[in-house]
Amino acid sequence: MTITPPALSVFETLESEVRSYCRGWPAVFDHARGSRLHDEDGHAYLDFFAGAGSLNYGHNNPVLKRALLDYLERDGLVHGLDMATTAKRAFLESFQNIVLRPRDLPYKVMFPGPTGTNAVEAALKLARKVKGRESVVSFTNAFHGMSLGSLAVTGNAFKRAGAGIPLVHGTPMPFDHYFDGRVPDFLWFERLLEDRGSGLNHPAAVIVETVQGEGGINVARAEWLRALQELCERRDMLLIVDDIQMGCGRTGGFFSFEEAGITPDIVTLSKSISGYGLPMSLCLFKPELDVWEPGEHNGTFRGHNPAFVTAAAALDTYWADGQMEKQTLTRGEQVEEALLAIAAESGDPQARFRGRGLVWGLEFGDPARASAVCSRAFGLGLLLETSGPRGEVVKLLPPLTISPEELDEGLRILARSVRETA
Amino acid sequence: MTITPPALSVFETLESEVRSYCRGWPAVFDHARGSRLHDEDGHAYLDFFAGAGSLNYGHNNPVLKRALLDYLERDGLVHGLDMATTAKRAFLESFQNIVLRPRDLPYKVMFPGPTGTNAVEAALKLARKVKGRESVVSFTNAFHGMSLGSLAVTGNAFKRAGAGIPLVHGTPMPFDHYFDGRVPDFLWFERLLEDRGSGLNHPAAVIVETVQGEGGINVARAEWLRALQELCERRDMLLIVDDIQMGCGRTGGFFSFEEAGITPDIVTLSKSISGYGLPMSLCLFKPELDVWEPGEHNGTFRGHNPAFVTAAAALDTYWADGQMEKQTLTRGEQVEEALLAIAAESGDPQARFRGRGLVWGLEFGDPARASAVCSRAFGLGLLLETSGPRGEVVKLLPPLTISPEELDEGLRILARSVRETA
Amino acid sequence: MTITPPALSVFETLESEVRSYCRGWPAVFDHARGSRLHDEDGHAYLDFFAGAGSLNYGHNNPVLKRALLDYLERDGLVHGLDMATTAKRAFLESFQNIVLRPRDLPYKVMFPGPTGTNAVEAALKLARKVKGRESVVSFTNAFHGMSLGSLAVTGNAFKRAGAGIPLVHGTPMPFDHYFDGRVPDFLWFERLLEDRGSGLNHPAAVIVETVQGEGGINVARAEWLRALQELCERRDMLLIVDDIQMGCGRTGGFFSFEEAGITPDIVTLSKSISGYGLPMSLCLFKPELDVWEPGEHNGTFRGHNPAFVTAAAALDTYWADGQMEKQTLTRGEQVEEALLAIAAESGDPQARFRGRGLVWGLEFGDPARASAVCSRAFGLGLLLETSGPRGEVVKLLPPLTISPEELDEGLRILARSVRETA
Amino acid sequence: MTITPPALSVFETLESEVRSYCRGWPAVFDHARGSRLHDEDGHAYLDFFAGAGSLNYGHNNPVLKRALLDYLERDGLVHGLDMATTAKRAFLESFQNIVLRPRDLPYKVMFPGPTGTNAVEAALKLARKVKGRESVVSFTNAFHGMSLGSLAVTGNAFKRAGAGIPLVHGTPMPFDHYFDGRVPDFLWFERLLEDRGSGLNHPAAVIVETVQGEGGINVARAEWLRALQELCERRDMLLIVDDIQMGCGRTGGFFSFEEAGITPDIVTLSKSISGYGLPMSLCLFKPELDVWEPGEHNGTFRGHNPAFVTAAAALDTYWADGQMEKQTLTRGEQVEEALLAIAAESGDPQARFRGRGLVWGLEFGDPARASAVCSRAFGLGLLLETSGPRGEVVKLLPPLTISPEELDEGLRILARSVRETA
Repeated sequence: MTITPPALSVFETLESEVRSYCRGWPAVFDHARGSRLHDEDGHAYLDFFAGAGSLNYGHNNPVLKRALLDYLERDGLVHGLDMATTAKRAFLESFQNIVLRPRDLPYKVMFPGPTGTNAVEAALKLARKVKGRESVVSFTNAFHGMSLGSLAVTGNAFKRAGAGIPLVHGTPMPFDHYFDGRVPDFLWFERLLEDRGSGLNHPAAVIVETVQGEGGINVARAEWLRALQELCERRDMLLIVDDIQMGCGRTGGFFSFEEAGITPDIVTLSKSISGYGLPMSLCLFKPELDVWEPGEHNGTFRGHNPAFVTAAAALDTYWADGQMEKQTLTRGEQVEEALLAIAAESGDPQARFRGRGLVWGLEFGDPARASAVCSRAFGLGLLLETSGPRGEVVKLLPPLTISPEELDEGLRILARSVRETA
Repeated sequence: MTITPPALSVFETLESEVRSYCRGWPAVFDHARGSRLHDEDGHAYLDFFAGAGSLNYGHNNPVLKRALLDYLERDGLVHGLDMATTAKRAFLESFQNIVLRPRDLPYKVMFPGPTGTNAVEAALKLARKVKGRESVVSFTNAFHGMSLGSLAVTGNAFKRAGAGIPLVHGTPMPFDHYFDGRVPDFLWFERLLEDRGSGLNHPAAVIVETVQGEGGINVARAEWLRALQELCERRDMLLIVDDIQMGCGRTGGFFSFEEAGITPDIVTLSKSISGYGLPMSLCLFKPELDVWEPGEHNGTFRGHNPAFVTAAAALDTYWADGQMEKQTLTRGEQVEEALLAIAAESGDPQARFRGRGLVWGLEFGDPARASAVCSRAFGLGLLLETSGPRGEVVKLLPPLTISPEELDEGLRILARSVRETA
Repeated sequence: MTITPPALSVFETLESEVRSYCRGWPAVFDHARGSRLHDEDGHAYLDFFAGAGSLNYGHNNPVLKRALLDYLERDGLVHGLDMATTAKRAFLESFQNIVLRPRDLPYKVMFPGPTGTNAVEAALKLARKVKGRESVVSFTNAFHGMSLGSLAVTGNAFKRAGAGIPLVHGTPMPFDHYFDGRVPDFLWFERLLEDRGSGLNHPAAVIVETVQGEGGINVARAEWLRALQELCERRDMLLIVDDIQMGCGRTGGFFSFEEAGITPDIVTLSKSISGYGLPMSLCLFKPELDVWEPGEHNGTFRGHNPAFVTAAAALDTYWADGQMEKQTLTRGEQVEEALLAIAAESGDPQARFRGRGLVWGLEFGDPARASAVCSRAFGLGLLLETSGPRGEVVKLLPPLTISPEELDEGLRILARSVRETA
Repeated sequence: MTITPPALSVFETLESEVRSYCRGWPAVFDHARGSRLHDEDGHAYLDFFAGAGSLNYGHNNPVLKRALLDYLERDGLVHGLDMATTAKRAFLESFQNIVLRPRDLPYKVMFPGPTGTNAVEAALKLARKVKGRESVVSFTNAFHGMSLGSLAVTGNAFKRAGAGIPLVHGTPMPFDHYFDGRVPDFLWFERLLEDRGSGLNHPAAVIVETVQGEGGINVARAEWLRALQELCERRDMLLIVDDIQMGCGRTGGFFSFEEAGITPDIVTLSKSISGYGLPMSLCLFKPELDVWEPGEHNGTFRGHNPAFVTAAAALDTYWADGQMEKQTLTRGEQVEEALLAIAAESGDPQARFRGRGLVWGLEFGDPARASAVCSRAFGLGLLLETSGPRGEVVKLLPPLTISPEELDEGLRILARSVRETA
């Protein structure tokens, strides 16, 4: 595939140097359907990235599209601040009936603004307000967002350096497997909490991803999550699960923490919650934590009604029964099987893979290899990204609605890319 | 009008107590066209709030709607991270040709995430990175957003208290007119800067709104803005104009700072930039400030392509010539004239009004009166909100596309509401 | 005078570059009596600096010396942590009977460690603990110390830069005369406090020097101090007077704030409190503020008993009646009269002088001139230092016990130095 | 022993509630010689606390006393800011010839103010200035002082709470033995440093005590200290040894780190450096770190010349040869032997003891027992204090000059106190 350099010119001349994905995927994309994107030169790309987890139901999902077009065509209210609207009501009712009630989750729902970092900022503000303490514990290789509150609990040193101020009030603790089982879980964290001389400021909350996506597809075990919840209760800290990337069915169940049987105090959702790639986020919390004053947190785009419409349609369509979860786990097995072979044949003795549901990571010893694999895959028409602190992990994040054939096609391209970069 | 209480129930039972606008406007809105919203009970409301300035071209503007539907119908890429897309290119080209070039503005364009606070966070990060200093000066009654970076430069004590941590690295300075002309402009600020013993940490940047919307429709004079720019240059500080609410034509020109003839180092845009109420924001800066590393700031919804589509359509439709600016100023005169009479007949000797273009404020001595006016106006079918540190200012922010007749209708309702609350 | 370079060698080779006074006064001092120091080469120097205000009773004051020698000879306890000792009791009783009771001051006494910055740190900690707020207001050109808490409320940019971290939680306000009367007192401060949208974090306390020594001998008017106290009461902020340099009789009364008739909530004392130049400091506060838990603040040298001995002797000798205050004011008049002539004949139209009691400043338009005057004075056997943000003020701080003749001698050397540097 | 309540009255009525030692030792002390203090009622107390390590040469050591009296009698300069003086020169020369040269230590010497916390603040400022980074790593149960900079690297939660602001820029790491050998040394610390996604801000420095006194007499192994030094070098962090309590011979060698054969980048000394209990402290650092500007850090009592005199006398008397070190180690063996029996007979299966040189800790399972032991010992005429995060450790810190007979006497009282509290 050749990309005519002039085609990129306005991006190069006018857009900031901060742009990044467009560098690894040097095409000008135009339209997309299901698991495939198309660039303006007519090339098609199979999508194993799904908008960083924002497109769990694929691109321009026809059911959601119909609901969206209907809403827009009839001049449904688009921008609604935090006004009551029929679209918001429909969403809230679906969310309550399809998501919360069947799982016995008691949460209040907050619309904190349409992006993940808005939800994380709201969660942290609320936790600090409730507990009257500033400190928050996060985990090694966590990713929670780019605004200053979220960035302070994000691990990546390169992103942190962009803050321009010292990031404080956060303390990292080792995520599950950080020492490959050589150290008992929470040994360090618990000891710091119980020792009045440890120097740890007593945290208001702990924020955790059940599977760290940006951090390299690090999967926390269910028992680790349960022990964390127990520790939070015992030591008077709120447990925040940031389910922005791993929620909305990515790992199988609607929430990624369901498998562990825990009930976090606060949950953040975004990315695939609208189902159509439209900006939307939620902050959920136990009712007794709803100590907000009216308007104490606000934001212009909290009421993005087209997103409520597609979000309700997605819940109604995919989550009214257990089919989606079942299908995701089946697809996951398909991926796992393929990765087993790919890793074994990779020629890299350090190659490892891990995942849950439809999020998987293939780790190489050398980050350059991971990067080369993605680059080769792009040339072969497959969108893949790296993650991990050194970019050493190839991340597989296909739409949940991908067909077994498409999945197989992508896995074969991946296998070939691994082979050809050995 | 009567609102059946059960109609609100899911909002009351499930949505967080943080919700606010829905309390002042107790209706369930359903659809909207141009300057009017309609609730599910069939009542119509004339909109003098315009989504807090996000709907400058009215609700579901037909030209933008057509472009949006076309794009969605043809499965144009919706979610694009920061990938190059045809929709983004079309927007960038329109923005360059219609906005930047004719005004001789040299800016690079960054998509920092889809909300205003994303843009402010990016602006502050960039300024600090460029200057290697942490401190930023903001102004009394400034409003820049709710995430921790933006909140630290926001004045409102109630919002600030929600942070849960001490907000530092920001220092407030008096906005224009803060002492009603009794003190020379920038006397305090300049003295602090020149005095090596003042205790002011040398700021990396100054962030300012040309008209403070949330702060009470405080209008900075052009000469004040010019003097501020000059001070920033002389004292090695970057000038950031937060044009999120006042840009996109609200005050007449596309940028609110055009009238003053200044060229800020960094500009933030959001709210009406998409034109259709869709989440989108921009951070603009002089090319020499574009020191970002690729990916140093990121975010899931930076590439909200439907918003690019409506944004390009809005620019092409309304800004290719000077008609919109002219019309806004004319409408503004209509408002001013009406306010002159309304204030005079208000019975409140402290009543004052002020504004520019199509943003106006009517201040009362007693905040309760302002609140009562908005409440009465709602009963009469007009959406109005208060602003100002004590909520003492009734804010007029109609769509720029409002017809003279609609404007007159709304002003008459306002006049009646003022009369009936005397 | 010639200084043999080798004589300084161990200072140059072994002592850190941070040393400063020894650079302006290149002699090796050996002994001292009253108002005179003697170097090892037999040169005598009249002291117009008095250990930066630590030697109000002169060097090796014979009465205090006798008490000190008696105590040491009889093996009185030297190091006492915060144990009860007979020496501490004698000091506390003298302090209560001679200082507090006659002035009707209700203070509790805390020994926070032996240096001024220990006392300021304790004062700030206590104020924040009492009010539950972090922010503290200080004034332009304030000096409160070099440890991080004190440095954050110190104005000097050069000293602040040494912190190595951003100094936060402090906000500077204009000291008295900062705008030469062009702006009403506290206009800015009060407006920030009353405006809920100002962006000022509500301060726990205000810390002020009645006369800023390091800041350039800036003398606050009594009415300004009274208005400040009134403002603190009205706005629920504690008033801390840092009387480290200006207390112990420097301005006439024992406390520098007596003249204004105010009663600060917290007072810090150090420098001349021991009377003999021995490290000692006090933090005084109203009894209702004594919310410390036992040991919540500690320090190894809080119980420096030889200092208690000389401190008690100084109080008993000099403060049992009003003679010291009267004498200081008389000496002050002598200085003022001389400075009137010196400034007039200085040839510098910008030359100004100001002071109270026995602290005076002679300001020049050009800092180089102030520096030259001190340098010339040193050559003529007079120790003088500069102060002010640019070092533009020659500071006169002779011992309070100086004789009229010595004072006259010093003033004549100063006059000559000014003449010879014209 | 009975204490007449009125005797304490001025302490109770006038002194702040913050006082602490006087509560555990309810006597009014008057004089002291060698290892014994005497109260005003004629009772004698053997001193196993030595001014928290400030009286390594005993109370009113006759050799030092003679030097001090001579100096004061001849009117040697007492207060000298940072001027060159004959007393300072003599001290610097002794320090160079007796301490630095024989140990091949290249340090520059800074007088940062007379207390330990002044020295720590200076060390932290310098490290941050040199590295241009804010973060500092300290250890669990560290104690470095009470001013805000030092307190931020101190572990004790009770002391930290006194700050009144969130203490940031410090991160605690596990001290040696923190996990009783179950976890490899520095596993967590090193992993955080090498992982670019760990979330640890890269530290400018690491600050450590070789034996944690306040923290409970936790003794770091020599190999742990060597590994720490190596880690600091490898990861570009400065190593600061806070030798305030453990230096000046407390553990045997002059510096406590000599045994480990390391050369810290920065060393703080205070407490026993003056030898006579007079306030004095030093900050030592490698010459290449001496980037201070003249006067960038200052303080009124940096030049406490009587302390220089006794400090020089102490070095000349006790450190010109290796006798002191040898004697301390011998006395240490005497203590160790006694503690072995005392712990065994304590009836507390959790009783443990540990120490080096002449600093030892006897830990009980129940803090109340430790407290009871000290209280009983006081009644029997022995001064002992507890330490550790829960006060569970009885701390033995006798003067280094104690005779074997006195040491035995004290150990017997301790043994009896332990027995009688079983």
